[in-house]
Amino acid sequence: MPAPTHSGRSALDATLDGTLDVVGIGNAIVDVMAPADDAAIAALGMVRGGMMLIDTERANALYDAMGPARESSGGSAANTLAGLAMLGAKCGFIGQVADDQLGEVFAHDIRAGGIDFSTPPRRVNAAAGDPPTARCLIFVSPDGQRTMNTFLGAAQFLPAAAVDEATIASARVLYLEGYLWDPEEPRSAMRRAIAAARAAGREVAFTLSDGFVIARHGDDFRALIEAGQIDILFANEHELAALTGVEDFHDGLASLHGKVPTVVVTRSEKGAHAFRGTEHASVPAEPVDHVIDTTGAGDLFAAGFLFGHVRGGSLEACLRLGAICAGEVISHYGARPEADLKRLCAKVM
Amino acid sequence: MPAPTHSGRSALDATLDGTLDVVGIGNAIVDVMAPADDAAIAALGMVRGGMMLIDTERANALYDAMGPARESSGGSAANTLAGLAMLGAKCGFIGQVADDQLGEVFAHDIRAGGIDFSTPPRRVNAAAGDPPTARCLIFVSPDGQRTMNTFLGAAQFLPAAAVDEATIASARVLYLEGYLWDPEEPRSAMRRAIAAARAAGREVAFTLSDGFVIARHGDDFRALIEAGQIDILFANEHELAALTGVEDFHDGLASLHGKVPTVVVTRSEKGAHAFRGTEHASVPAEPVDHVIDTTGAGDLFAAGFLFGHVRGGSLEACLRLGAICAGEVISHYGARPEADLKRLCAKVM
Repeated sequence: MPAPTHSGRSALDATLDGTLDVVGIGNAIVDVMAPADDAAIAALGMVRGGMMLIDTERANALYDAMGPARESSGGSAANTLAGLAMLGAKCGFIGQVADDQLGEVFAHDIRAGGIDFSTPPRRVNAAAGDPPTARCLIFVSPDGQRTMNTFLGAAQFLPAAAVDEATIASARVLYLEGYLWDPEEPRSAMRRAIAAARAAGREVAFTLSDGFVIARHGDDFRALIEAGQIDILFANEHELAALTGVEDFHDGLASLHGKVPTVVVTRSEKGAHAFRGTEHASVPAEPVDHVIDTTGAGDLFAAGFLFGHVRGGSLEACLRLGAICAGEVISHYGARPEADLKRLCAKVM
Repeated sequence: MPAPTHSGRSALDATLDGTLDVVGIGNAIVDVMAPADDAAIAALGMVRGGMMLIDTERANALYDAMGPARESSGGSAANTLAGLAMLGAKCGFIGQVADDQLGEVFAHDIRAGGIDFSTPPRRVNAAAGDPPTARCLIFVSPDGQRTMNTFLGAAQFLPAAAVDEATIASARVLYLEGYLWDPEEPRSAMRRAIAAARAAGREVAFTLSDGFVIARHGDDFRALIEAGQIDILFANEHELAALTGVEDFHDGLASLHGKVPTVVVTRSEKGAHAFRGTEHASVPAEPVDHVIDTTGAGDLFAAGFLFGHVRGGSLEACLRLGAICAGEVISHYGARPEADLKRLCAKVM
């Protein structure tokens, strides 16, 4: 494994190092995936490639319409941490499952990946209508595009008390999932986490997740950015345009200069672009023989990038790591990595 | 699609045809799969390639030791029906799930495959210690070999009342899973089903499933065979030897002549052999680029064979269909078919 080309770490950083590289806060979700053709997706009233929040009734109707499926743990930030942990980073996750079988599945998978996870499950009294563990019904098109329908269940009730400030302070990077900014309780939890991270001199990374989140909470995000609360921002090109209100990609990126230290924008098969301070870099997408399921592509891009970042990699190395991890996860069903990411990434750092 | 080379069906058969091609009775199980190396399998006290029944405590310990996993519906007879239905056969399934999330997953997947499934879920009062839906913890070795640990949960409480005699009488073939002969209640249910099928002039197919079942219930199976209650018997070569007490493969097969009308013996990569009356045939294994997970290989072989059988295929065509379906299921994770079996099998019949 070649030495990092850029360190970015000082002796002081090393002294400040806590027990974790990255702590993430996100939706604790189990994915339910099945193949579907585009006509069926349209007939069910879904927008191909999109993400919709759904209620119990819609979840039942869509599940009834879905073909034989398979289940595996998901959740945007949780997927990113799974990639980071597989690469060798020390990680913690904060998110809300219910005390049910899918909650056990989620908790097992994240802990089995070596990630610290100690948010207590929420009690479920099904008779009282308590929400179960979140699930995402994912219809996968023949070309690998995924159309997601998220039933948030217990995940939206993550209480601020679940954020342990000592844990946040111990991690080099706090990673936040934009999806979770939508429900009120987790938003409070994330604000509390941002304050704890900044008080401890840690970096705050944020992924914008989806256009609907920006439509509803763009003012919050812009205020956080103006206040210098975000150190690393992840977006795809559509989210960048929605956030900045600038249609041109390069102009949109430029509008964030001086406000966010590091910005990473992914552009699907067109690769990715980033700046860090005055440094700029871009990479092409990693070639993939056969795209099976694009679920988790952005999440795993963030995993590779953040791994390079906490290990002091150059901006270009960080982007290449992101592209490799994204390429792995789209080559099979499911949003968690399957191949040995460490081996795949050894050529970069 | 070429015409079948051997019909085997008469006008009388067609008149007797009911609403289903095959009705199966089996364990209603959700599979939990993760990769594992052989050293880890040995260290956990498992026998590579085997199947063990486990209790709650052992299930928890093994799940804790398991890596990040994925879930999909399984169960031997249910896998066979999933293949049959995908090929175009009309099928019904009888099996016991609990009224919990994994039970919903199992029921969804089998119904989404177009299979009739109306066994009511068993109520679960977790506080009272009621058993949940069955699961099978499957450790998959790098060469695709699977080591299974089955927690039977609700599946072992299938009551005889779940067998609807009119449904059994309406199906050309009753397919029974040997695994389910072990617990008492389902054994009674299966005996009731055999009686109903025979009274209606239907065929009874039985798969021996595993050496431990034969060790415990071999006398039952031999008595059923001597009494002419089994029309089609599926076994692998080890099960054949355990059943007949004859070590030599061909001698073992010959010892069943005149007792069971059709016997099918699978031999993994060495292919499969069968006789039907005085007719004999054998086929090589279907070439597979890369064996990923052998879970379900025998189940899908039975699916292909039975499809050929109910469609009046020649003995050789039935075996070839079995080999193609088994080849598909071992080329990916999970015990249910993913590729379009109808298309894969079109070259045979």
